[in-house]
Amino acid sequence: MRINAFTVEDIPLITKDHNIANIICSLAQVKDHDIIVVASTIVSKVEGRIIDPDKITPTPEAIRISKLLDNDPKFVQAVLDECTEVILESPIFLVRHTSGNICINAGVDHSNVEDGLLLLPIDPDRSARKLKEDIFKLTGKRVSVIITDTNGRAFREGQTGIALGVAGINTHHDWRGSTDLFGTTLEVANEAVVDEIAGFANCMMGEGNWGTPVVVIRGFELLSDSDGMDAMYRTPETDIIRNALQNYKSRT
Amino acid sequence: MRINAFTVEDIPLITKDHNIANIICSLAQVKDHDIIVVASTIVSKVEGRIIDPDKITPTPEAIRISKLLDNDPKFVQAVLDECTEVILESPIFLVRHTSGNICINAGVDHSNVEDGLLLLPIDPDRSARKLKEDIFKLTGKRVSVIITDTNGRAFREGQTGIALGVAGINTHHDWRGSTDLFGTTLEVANEAVVDEIAGFANCMMGEGNWGTPVVVIRGFELLSDSDGMDAMYRTPETDIIRNALQNYKSRT
Repeated sequence: MRINAFTVEDIPLITKDHNIANIICSLAQVKDHDIIVVASTIVSKVEGRIIDPDKITPTPEAIRISKLLDNDPKFVQAVLDECTEVILESPIFLVRHTSGNICINAGVDHSNVEDGLLLLPIDPDRSARKLKEDIFKLTGKRVSVIITDTNGRAFREGQTGIALGVAGINTHHDWRGSTDLFGTTLEVANEAVVDEIAGFANCMMGEGNWGTPVVVIRGFELLSDSDGMDAMYRTPETDIIRNALQNYKSRT
Repeated sequence: MRINAFTVEDIPLITKDHNIANIICSLAQVKDHDIIVVASTIVSKVEGRIIDPDKITPTPEAIRISKLLDNDPKFVQAVLDECTEVILESPIFLVRHTSGNICINAGVDHSNVEDGLLLLPIDPDRSARKLKEDIFKLTGKRVSVIITDTNGRAFREGQTGIALGVAGINTHHDWRGSTDLFGTTLEVANEAVVDEIAGFANCMMGEGNWGTPVVVIRGFELLSDSDGMDAMYRTPETDIIRNALQNYKSRT
């Protein structure tokens, strides 16, 4: 197997007036089966997901949590407005974003925004599907799209890129039932390929002012009619770590 | 940025008599700054890390845990012998492997081994360093090496490749202190690049009988004099999820 991956260069500073598909297709020659990996930051900007913290009135709940975190109550309120569930209030503010993703601060970010707070796309799967369809309209090419964010992990220091929204690709490759080199059936091998690809693209993108927010990955045969991240998030019943953290919260 | 990545084809079925560096260098033209990603399974096989479960005598502790897990007491004993700390006994057997990595079953595996249980390399950093040095002796080329395993994650379904041992590369790229597009200093961006690269390589390798256990990644400028995974594992003091799971264990 041979994979070529490249960053799309010369992407302008993205604002609400841009169309990401137009930009990508004018700067890169897209091919069938390409995987187009896009940082959620630019998707959010195109979708106008920037809020002015001065317009936020924090609730007593936000004020209470902000004291635990030693953080701005308006920022905490912005996070609460973006999440469906608080997993842990402190020492890290771990919540479930409306998309289903469990992450710190619901992905609310004040980097790379001139004024205000940048929120995650409101429906990252829909954003991915729209980008896939826009690219098809422009080029006639059938591609997969992965929208990424950067998350911390349990047990391991540092962050990696993860898939936040996907279109035209299965989140997982399920190897269960296939056999190993000696004919034994594999029992546990449900590989989260979209996260593996998102992480690598994140490594190519860089952060800060070196950032190039779009990567094209060419050579996999992963194109599918599947859309969406539904298979990614554990249900509360099967999520041991979430449940342990909730007990931890109620104990302290 | 442009990255080329390829699997090394025609690798034989690895046994204790093989030398991995010789095999890689005879099948692929290695270049300076290449990142050589190798599945821990073949490193383990070369290092003879296969044990016969029939020769294991389970302790009462292993027998007790095996009942909770509905698993073979000999398998549980093999895991206990490979770990320095049990994080959770059931419903998943989550432990810290002697290398520092927290994972299910200490990575003890009965796939892709003709007879017996395959253990992780005893010191994956040392294995990575040896491979880096062997490749240098054979070719004069300075490469980075990442030895991978496949682990589950918190909150998200499925497994991804992760770095288990590294040489000639920093585990993280620390973006903190650099500025964003608008000159604001980035506060939190310590990117675990070796995990991002390990995951992608894992996606290229495949599992089971399609497996190709070596991937070469070309185009990054990540070569470093640094070796080792020390910066990867959270200390118990800072590991909130580990601590929550330990409280969870003591409650149930």
